[in-house]
Amino acid sequence: VKTLTLARDLRRRRARERHGLFVAEGVRTVEELLASPLDVRGLLVSPQLLAAPRGRELRERVEARGLSVAEVSEQDFASAAETDTPQGVLAIARAPAARLEDLDLSPPATLVVLDGVQDPGNVGTILRTAAALGAAATVALPGTVDLWNAKVVRSAMGAHFHHPAVSCTVDELDAFLAARSIPLWGADARGAPVATVPRPESVALAVGNEGAGLGPAVRARVSQLVSLPIASRVESLNVAVAAGILLYELRR
Amino acid sequence: VKTLTLARDLRRRRARERHGLFVAEGVRTVEELLASPLDVRGLLVSPQLLAAPRGRELRERVEARGLSVAEVSEQDFASAAETDTPQGVLAIARAPAARLEDLDLSPPATLVVLDGVQDPGNVGTILRTAAALGAAATVALPGTVDLWNAKVVRSAMGAHFHHPAVSCTVDELDAFLAARSIPLWGADARGAPVATVPRPESVALAVGNEGAGLGPAVRARVSQLVSLPIASRVESLNVAVAAGILLYELRR
Repeated sequence: VKTLTLARDLRRRRARERHGLFVAEGVRTVEELLASPLDVRGLLVSPQLLAAPRGRELRERVEARGLSVAEVSEQDFASAAETDTPQGVLAIARAPAARLEDLDLSPPATLVVLDGVQDPGNVGTILRTAAALGAAATVALPGTVDLWNAKVVRSAMGAHFHHPAVSCTVDELDAFLAARSIPLWGADARGAPVATVPRPESVALAVGNEGAGLGPAVRARVSQLVSLPIASRVESLNVAVAAGILLYELRR
Repeated sequence: VKTLTLARDLRRRRARERHGLFVAEGVRTVEELLASPLDVRGLLVSPQLLAAPRGRELRERVEARGLSVAEVSEQDFASAAETDTPQGVLAIARAPAARLEDLDLSPPATLVVLDGVQDPGNVGTILRTAAALGAAATVALPGTVDLWNAKVVRSAMGAHFHHPAVSCTVDELDAFLAARSIPLWGADARGAPVATVPRPESVALAVGNEGAGLGPAVRARVSQLVSLPIASRVESLNVAVAAGILLYELRR
């Protein structure tokens, strides 16, 4: 019951920040979490998990590690889960303390900056892509969905467990980048085609809200706007696809 | 009530195919549909639409065009809608008859082939990306979610209204490509890095299921597997992001 109460509480961002904990849902995400160096506090499982062979194996592995497993009814489990198909398992783990100052930014480094990206699936997909394409970190500015939201963690397919995910204000990011002479670029349809702009040694690339694009605070601080060549009758790319192509184009 | 009954019926793929109709949900998708040359049969609206100024404008524009608008209760509207936030409006329209033989494949042409892609959001995002990056068409093979599913239409942000979306069997695709000497490539982590393979004049690029990748029937017919360079500890990219980067790399 204690694990159940905690899991329910952790659906709120404030509670996640106060406890320094987050929730990973679904068999695959929990498996990735268990294979990572992160500190797992406990699991909540429902009868649904134990109906599948992969689920039973997962539970055995977890118990062999001496982790606490709380078994609850489907109804109680559903009251704690955040994703659509949690598959009867969620794990509570300590979120790695990620601060801008702690990032390893040995050049050439690429930072992905999220400015008001609101869909958890988009944010999770961007974290997954940033990890896959070797970005140094993903930074969330205010207005972006919490990087440790359970839906974001699920969509990121384990990226959180080895790729630094940091939240900060625009001023904090600006001071941090200025101190390291790292330019801030922004993705915008009116920018220069990205393939035509020489890449700086290190760069921070900001992508904006799904509907409105970059916000005024980031726009005011960007030294270069970059775009992708798209057909004139299409308004825009999905933000996660755009981020993926830009990171691919900028990779070193 | 007739529009309501029809909209409910059109949630099933069979009914969409029998009637040759599909459903577009949400203010923005319906606006894109109205701006397209497609034949709109009628709208279903709920009080929610008329609570927003943009919704009232939409309704006025629709009525000015002489289109039939059926107003139903929130509850009835919800019984017909498929997406999470339909915003109180859906439109029924004729699906353009898209057959492989009708495609304009003047070289260089790129076709996107979906082999068992199951998530409607991924499929819609791939259609949106294919349209944006100038692909000639998107082709869905069996096992892929229906291209005219309302969630796919919503995610594609209007791509269906000007980008050809075709369903066929692997044999039909194979015969079609063979007759035009267009090679079939497949995206696979074990393939050659895409940037190292010379692009044929025209090419069909297949991407596979979210978990299992390409199926055996497509694998047996592919002349070239191509991959993207990703970090070793990351298993894969999201299929829509991978398709986007590959299309960007292959664009002419």
